Amino acid sequence: MSKYVNSDISENIMHIKLDRAHKKNALTEDMYLELKNLINKASQNKKVKVILISGGEDFTAGNDIRDFIENPPKDKNSPVFKFMIALTECPLPIISAVSGFAVGIGTTMLLHCDLVYASKNSLFMMPFINLGLVPEFASSLLLQKRTGYLKAAEMLMLGEKFDAKTALEYRLINQICEESELSNIALNSAKKLSAKPRELLITTKALIRRESETIKGRIELEADHFIEQLGNPETIEILTRLNKK
Amino acid sequence: MSKYVNSDISENIMHIKLDRAHKKNALTEDMYLELKNLINKASQNKKVKVILISGGEDFTAGNDIRDFIENPPKDKNSPVFKFMIALTECPLPIISAVSGFAVGIGTTMLLHCDLVYASKNSLFMMPFINLGLVPEFASSLLLQKRTGYLKAAEMLMLGEKFDAKTALEYRLINQICEESELSNIALNSAKKLSAKPRELLITTKALIRRESETIKGRIELEADHFIEQLGNPETIEILTRLNKK
Amino acid sequence: MSKYVNSDISENIMHIKLDRAHKKNALTEDMYLELKNLINKASQNKKVKVILISGGEDFTAGNDIRDFIENPPKDKNSPVFKFMIALTECPLPIISAVSGFAVGIGTTMLLHCDLVYASKNSLFMMPFINLGLVPEFASSLLLQKRTGYLKAAEMLMLGEKFDAKTALEYRLINQICEESELSNIALNSAKKLSAKPRELLITTKALIRRESETIKGRIELEADHFIEQLGNPETIEILTRLNKK
Repeated sequence: MSKYVNSDISENIMHIKLDRAHKKNALTEDMYLELKNLINKASQNKKVKVILISGGEDFTAGNDIRDFIENPPKDKNSPVFKFMIALTECPLPIISAVSGFAVGIGTTMLLHCDLVYASKNSLFMMPFINLGLVPEFASSLLLQKRTGYLKAAEMLMLGEKFDAKTALEYRLINQICEESELSNIALNSAKKLSAKPRELLITTKALIRRESETIKGRIELEADHFIEQLGNPETIEILTRLNKK
Repeated sequence: MSKYVNSDISENIMHIKLDRAHKKNALTEDMYLELKNLINKASQNKKVKVILISGGEDFTAGNDIRDFIENPPKDKNSPVFKFMIALTECPLPIISAVSGFAVGIGTTMLLHCDLVYASKNSLFMMPFINLGLVPEFASSLLLQKRTGYLKAAEMLMLGEKFDAKTALEYRLINQICEESELSNIALNSAKKLSAKPRELLITTKALIRRESETIKGRIELEADHFIEQLGNPETIEILTRLNKK
Repeated sequence: MSKYVNSDISENIMHIKLDRAHKKNALTEDMYLELKNLINKASQNKKVKVILISGGEDFTAGNDIRDFIENPPKDKNSPVFKFMIALTECPLPIISAVSGFAVGIGTTMLLHCDLVYASKNSLFMMPFINLGLVPEFASSLLLQKRTGYLKAAEMLMLGEKFDAKTALEYRLINQICEESELSNIALNSAKKLSAKPRELLITTKALIRRESETIKGRIELEADHFIEQLGNPETIEILTRLNKK
């Protein structure tokens, strides 16, 4: 357990709040482990359909610098990597609400969320190269899929900060919000998702996340699921209702 | 044959028109089979260089709901899947002119066209999850290649409608047109393409469509075709003419 | 050696200038070989951290048409292909400053640079199909990764010219510059990069360039480098300094 990560479950939504404001929500080993545990619990809890992650004034200033020095991750069993795998392999949709600083892993973790809302005052940065470090959390792979090679190279090679407008242009967020509306907009989308069948959310996310496949192969894989759903009584009921309109 | 799909060939262009206006051009089994047949005929007809697909007031409201209930596709031999494979494997360039509703497969089929023009009043939607269904026609693979993961997840997980401006921003269409100019703009591009050598259209499309390859492998594959073309008398004639300018 | 390609090295930057203004910097066999040699020398020279490529009034009008007719590339040992492989496999960051014409390989070579700045008056074109040719330099693979399938198909199938604003929208350049500021902006970025450790520039570029991998595989590969850097004395010094702030 970490006192810097809070969570609650209501209306099929697990809400995870980073709460270490005096350090701009910088992440420590304890916090990574707690995040990993919460994500895994949500996946196993049939009552949870959506995970919503938020910070406070800041989303997160990234990995705690002191932790990097005193407890550097030593191998892939380190808390930070356990968190990474849990987040990227989570079968449920994940929504993040970003405000203030989203530095380092604060930006790269957004690449593994499904919907991202950011307030106007958000500041993003992946300063790895300036710290003597390299890109992490598959940002070297995923950024260019979002925004093309050149902007990815610019972000990772120059390591400069950018604002919410640029993040939207780079397809790293879904929408820019007024700071006062951020929580409501993120929660509203969480509620919309939580109104849908849990299994369909999981199947839809799994289909979008699948990697490395031919177009024909994908058409066929989807068809298997599609045909199965056409035999599903709930689906038939929806279609029958629509057909009578 | 389906009375709801019309076609004609002129100036090396096969023009296919969806014509079931009273049902907003919703697609039935017969229509899918007719579309598949027309596409395959065009590919085999040396006089056809381009396929142009259009609707009327609406492009298509998607799969006929009654057909989903009464004749649901049962396997990959169903008409809808035969149509999908024919469209995605068609070697000729395909242009679509979209107006009004482009729902479900009306949106996803655009992912397999080469140029897409849409009138201002177009409305796009992939409401699969809201019908108890899953993404189809490789939309779960291709949408994120167009617009990045987040917007793809938003479209497929929320299943909400969006307009032509958003479709352009998401790279699902090439251009927004005034309704009155849509046909002419689409036809104009079809004519431009039909003025080019059929074999080069096919080779160019095949190169762009090829999947899963290293950059070096692609450079070499293109080089084979490039070197071959440099020995082609027509190419030499063009280059010689240009060199004298 | 080619009298049409100049170069110098200063402040860890190799600056390569195309200098055949009377032919709008059209590229000949000699120039390709010289470019290849310079790129390879830069890679092997520990004092060079960044390559900066620029033209003059024009970037380059593409392959010299007369050369296409009189000395067409015959196989993958031709100078143009040697240049292609050298550029795409160069481990150092490459910046291009584009003004005026960037035709054919003048556009496609930008797909292998890391930062591209273009003046307002730039004109891009890949007219291969109109010359009886096919796409080259992996443009048939890479363009759609930048800008989505439809725009890639439009550029390669119609072969029409487009301006800097469109090139920015298509993610083929990083930034549009006033003509008078182009050199300074490109040089400024080159200096920023040359202030970073050479090995980190190489590792960062190599990570972004790696192809065909799962997300989990990429997270792990990055982690290997990340953990190694956390043990690097220079990195520890940077982090320790930051932690004291």
